[in-house]
Amino acid sequence: MTTEVTRRVVTDQEQAAAARRTVEELLQRVDHRLHSFLSAERARYAAVHSHAVVAVDALLDLVSAGGKLIRPAFCLTGYLAAGGDPENPGIVDAAAALELLHISALVHDDVLDDSRTRRGKPAVHLLHSTLHRSRGWQGESRRFGEGVALLVGDLALVYSDELMSHAPAGGFPEWHRLRSEVMIGQYMDVAAAAEFNIDPDLSRLIALIKSGRYTIHRPLVVGASAAGRPDLAPALVEYGEAVGEAFQLRDDLLDAFGDPALTGKTAGLDFSQHKMTLLLGWAMQRDARIRDLVTEPGHTPDEVRLRLLDTGVPEDVERHIAGLVERGRAAIADAPLEPVWRGELTTMALRVAYRDK
Amino acid sequence: MTTEVTRRVVTDQEQAAAARRTVEELLQRVDHRLHSFLSAERARYAAVHSHAVVAVDALLDLVSAGGKLIRPAFCLTGYLAAGGDPENPGIVDAAAALELLHISALVHDDVLDDSRTRRGKPAVHLLHSTLHRSRGWQGESRRFGEGVALLVGDLALVYSDELMSHAPAGGFPEWHRLRSEVMIGQYMDVAAAAEFNIDPDLSRLIALIKSGRYTIHRPLVVGASAAGRPDLAPALVEYGEAVGEAFQLRDDLLDAFGDPALTGKTAGLDFSQHKMTLLLGWAMQRDARIRDLVTEPGHTPDEVRLRLLDTGVPEDVERHIAGLVERGRAAIADAPLEPVWRGELTTMALRVAYRDK
Repeated sequence: MTTEVTRRVVTDQEQAAAARRTVEELLQRVDHRLHSFLSAERARYAAVHSHAVVAVDALLDLVSAGGKLIRPAFCLTGYLAAGGDPENPGIVDAAAALELLHISALVHDDVLDDSRTRRGKPAVHLLHSTLHRSRGWQGESRRFGEGVALLVGDLALVYSDELMSHAPAGGFPEWHRLRSEVMIGQYMDVAAAAEFNIDPDLSRLIALIKSGRYTIHRPLVVGASAAGRPDLAPALVEYGEAVGEAFQLRDDLLDAFGDPALTGKTAGLDFSQHKMTLLLGWAMQRDARIRDLVTEPGHTPDEVRLRLLDTGVPEDVERHIAGLVERGRAAIADAPLEPVWRGELTTMALRVAYRDK
Repeated sequence: MTTEVTRRVVTDQEQAAAARRTVEELLQRVDHRLHSFLSAERARYAAVHSHAVVAVDALLDLVSAGGKLIRPAFCLTGYLAAGGDPENPGIVDAAAALELLHISALVHDDVLDDSRTRRGKPAVHLLHSTLHRSRGWQGESRRFGEGVALLVGDLALVYSDELMSHAPAGGFPEWHRLRSEVMIGQYMDVAAAAEFNIDPDLSRLIALIKSGRYTIHRPLVVGASAAGRPDLAPALVEYGEAVGEAFQLRDDLLDAFGDPALTGKTAGLDFSQHKMTLLLGWAMQRDARIRDLVTEPGHTPDEVRLRLLDTGVPEDVERHIAGLVERGRAAIADAPLEPVWRGELTTMALRVAYRDK
């Protein structure tokens, strides 16, 4: 009996390692596909004019700077967990499409938020407004830089779609829903920040729409549906909504207390942009003074941070994250998945909930 | 003999009228499809939150304001000329996708150019920066308005793609090329304006890429390829490049001398944005003072207009347009098309070259 149990345990670990290896290998193919696709486009436009490659180069820079590839990882995991063939190049294209969509969202987001850095480098709009100024070009540098970022993000958006057109068609309906929903969620986010709406229910709804669904559950369902298993959607949706909220809450904590050297983006942006995060919403309900610290000029992010810590809300958020990870795990406990993929999804939930960048 | 000739003439006219009627009927279906698609999306998001419909409403407003539907018309004509079945709903979706892509480009363009009006109403970014200001919302009104326009344009872009996914797959490669190329052409345009490059060859290249191909030849080829006739592409490309240049030159003339009450957009924008149009490029080669009138502060658009007329360039542009229309007609003279569609394409060339809005 002991030997048999030991053998089974070893086998489980080996299976988990093999599953992880398959995901990692496919993620490398995604990275390679992004580079080769964009390099081919670059070569095509280099023959046209030197200006014709600028927007493609901006995308190549962002791909080369390296992202966390969270959405491709969930898409691939959903696909493999649903029994999809890992040798199908279409699923690599689907995962690459999700990453390019995300790059588009980041470039446009950085304009919306006037963020200075992205993936450890100057944000696209900032880089090009600086170039405009240093070259003494005509017109307003800000409009030029933001205009370039607008076009670079648009280009990423259409390229993402070109890649997705090579993917298994089963994932298309979820892909369409994912994309339109994230744009609408983004509007809700900027509007809530502008009207300074501190309703935590609205903050949760926005986090669910523009972050949880976009990052976790819809990529998972794109993958599972591409593998011909839309029946897995309900369990993946429940898992994804819980883990997605944990992902967003960690994002809020990283923005407030994280290390910019690790995250590669400006710290305290949620404060300066009056983003109605759950963290801030909860904190303001306990301590009305935080609202003034965020909106009145002359206060430093450190003042907001200290006051936030005093409310005890960050610890509450940590507890809430732990509960969400547990809820995500429970959501897939009875789903018709092989144990190895159930385990992999649990590992991924922990990874996104407790990441440091 | 006389009777027979008369009968044939009548029949040709009847055929032409029937062809035109088919295109018009399909254009009405395109308009209806855009409304029904966006209305269904609106209904879906109305159930979520009042903010969730704002971006969809912006698109419904633009569709309702009515466009010229030039790109859908060329797509449908290419399809029908290639023998496509007019009852295939997929081609209505393809044409509707081209219109939504165009709406996306207009909304984003108006941010790039800081244009005030579009289709006779305030541009999206201006409307929302005004709303932001009047409501006393947090943050900068300009960033808010431009951010909303960015998201509204993104939403139109992803919806255009969702519609195209229902179209016959034969048109997809041309669709992908059309979309990425227009983004790259847009960058080339803003960069040439910023560096104030008056090289007429570059102006022509940009006009070809971002206007001619985007408006005429690629929509035609999307249609013909959707009908399974990619072999028609060479003749349609030659036709489209000539008629597309005529289209762009008319655009330049309308911007300089057109009636804003008819065009529905701000006049003289090319001057104020230093757009290196062919019209301006040619005029500056003849009269260097025009460059100063455009770049130095304190000069009115009327001063530029009068000086432009003095150069005689507007008449030259008119002659060039006439030559381009003739070149377009010649390009399809020997193409394997039914005479009725050859005639319809000639009529369309005249219509875009001599439009007043």
